[in-house]
Amino acid sequence: MSWVIGQGRKMINYIMGIDGGGSKCRARLVSFNGEVLGSGIAGSANPLEGVGDAIAAILKSARKSIQAAGLKEEVFRNTTVGLGLAGLNLPDCHTALKDWQHPFGEIFMTSDQYVACLGAHHGADGAVIIAGTGSCGISIVDDTVREYGGHGFPLGDKGGGAWMGLKALQHSLRAENNLGRQTILTGMLHDCFRETDNARIISRMARAKPFEYARLAPIVFTAAEQNDDVALEIIQDGAAYISRMAREILKTSPPRLSILGGLGPRLQLWLDKEVSSHLQQPLDTAEAGAILYARNCLAMKNRRLEKDTPQ
Amino acid sequence: MSWVIGQGRKMINYIMGIDGGGSKCRARLVSFNGEVLGSGIAGSANPLEGVGDAIAAILKSARKSIQAAGLKEEVFRNTTVGLGLAGLNLPDCHTALKDWQHPFGEIFMTSDQYVACLGAHHGADGAVIIAGTGSCGISIVDDTVREYGGHGFPLGDKGGGAWMGLKALQHSLRAENNLGRQTILTGMLHDCFRETDNARIISRMARAKPFEYARLAPIVFTAAEQNDDVALEIIQDGAAYISRMAREILKTSPPRLSILGGLGPRLQLWLDKEVSSHLQQPLDTAEAGAILYARNCLAMKNRRLEKDTPQ
Repeated sequence: MSWVIGQGRKMINYIMGIDGGGSKCRARLVSFNGEVLGSGIAGSANPLEGVGDAIAAILKSARKSIQAAGLKEEVFRNTTVGLGLAGLNLPDCHTALKDWQHPFGEIFMTSDQYVACLGAHHGADGAVIIAGTGSCGISIVDDTVREYGGHGFPLGDKGGGAWMGLKALQHSLRAENNLGRQTILTGMLHDCFRETDNARIISRMARAKPFEYARLAPIVFTAAEQNDDVALEIIQDGAAYISRMAREILKTSPPRLSILGGLGPRLQLWLDKEVSSHLQQPLDTAEAGAILYARNCLAMKNRRLEKDTPQ
Repeated sequence: MSWVIGQGRKMINYIMGIDGGGSKCRARLVSFNGEVLGSGIAGSANPLEGVGDAIAAILKSARKSIQAAGLKEEVFRNTTVGLGLAGLNLPDCHTALKDWQHPFGEIFMTSDQYVACLGAHHGADGAVIIAGTGSCGISIVDDTVREYGGHGFPLGDKGGGAWMGLKALQHSLRAENNLGRQTILTGMLHDCFRETDNARIISRMARAKPFEYARLAPIVFTAAEQNDDVALEIIQDGAAYISRMAREILKTSPPRLSILGGLGPRLQLWLDKEVSSHLQQPLDTAEAGAILYARNCLAMKNRRLEKDTPQ
């Protein structure tokens, strides 16, 4: 077992990578040597929708990964965590998470897209577009990090699942009283809700979180594949935005570009040919990227400590 | 002073009309003879955004109208209230408001657009389109009531202020990293927020209520009047939807059609000529309509009681 002991250093036996996403939070626990010990999944960890709920999801996924490894929670204090989380760039979320009294030995936080990009390219330069509940992009080339889109739902995240679900539901409701086109998408949405009464659907969705809208996105794809006018318009509009994002990202000359997120595989088919010809499979997950991030941060910290320690 | 006494009847000295809107709640108190005694205004009364807050706004506007009349709260129990409120058709809101232990002698509730329509045409047949925080329409012809649109923000209410504000902010955020067009609207929004840092704007608006988005709508009109591409697209898209609603409403042959709400005067200029040629000035306010509604309900109740009372 490897660990680091010394002035200002803690005993680190475990590294945990956590990817806090809009619909799922995933944790992976590895030994310091890199052996995968356990994984855990919890619900949505989007601090924009409430920092308390996000922290609860993070802890739940972490506990599950420890349990899966057959370990007890005491090991938290010997665990260095790399956490990728949306919304960290927003002042409110940043402040709330900075003050978090977490149970881990140490925690390093960065954006969810940053760890996804590290994972997708095994820590090497590259870029990713994430199309899941939301949508965003990141390019890491020559130590320069550039971020694209994001901004959360409903302000941003065009082309993401929540955006698609909202668009579809807006169209479907508008079809009532002939204020919009009634298409097969309308019926498919009613089937999904097991409800044709718009008032009840509105009641259920009036305060819905992004991931609840995102659950409707697969229906939009299915309707578009059946040439539904409204669904086609939504998918094409979303895909055009993602293609534009990809073209902006490609200007930074990333050695590799991957599309990630639950919507990735289906959305990929609707992107510009020029863009989709550049796409490559991701090499690993965002949790793996979060582990790489934790290791990078630890290494940097140790270098700093060595520099500061008199020989 | 007129009042009604008898089996199952209460002493009614006052009638109060309350119009609960998405940005303001307005109350008007009149004597049973119709003399205006006082008015009161409170903040947003949208039960979709929280029934508790809506009830608080309703009570605040009612208290203010009583105070303006130089009366004490005790008169609430001698007051019959007509209340127009959004969201009453939604099961959750309906249940919560049905169980409300209100302080009034009696309360009759209906939709906000219903009382607006009664007010606009002095209780006669007619139709209105309301473009304020949200958007909706109603036609009352030969005792047939037809409602159009509504559905709340962000699911519906296309062409309303909140919809416009969100669209404008989405465009402005997208302009970052060249994922959308940067136009004069972007700068106008930054001026309005006194902020050019998108992260701070997102933090402020991430959980914003519809009326907070609606505050941005006048900027969109101003930018459109200066031929801003993005603003023009938003206003034209919204106006096309409202024009379509108006054409559907005109099929019901209402004797009069008015456009109401804070956005009405500016939006009117962007509607189809065919539609705008039909528009007429409203005769009175929604609070006045709510008073008419209370009187109609009282009269109907008294007729029922007379029928049920043995002669």
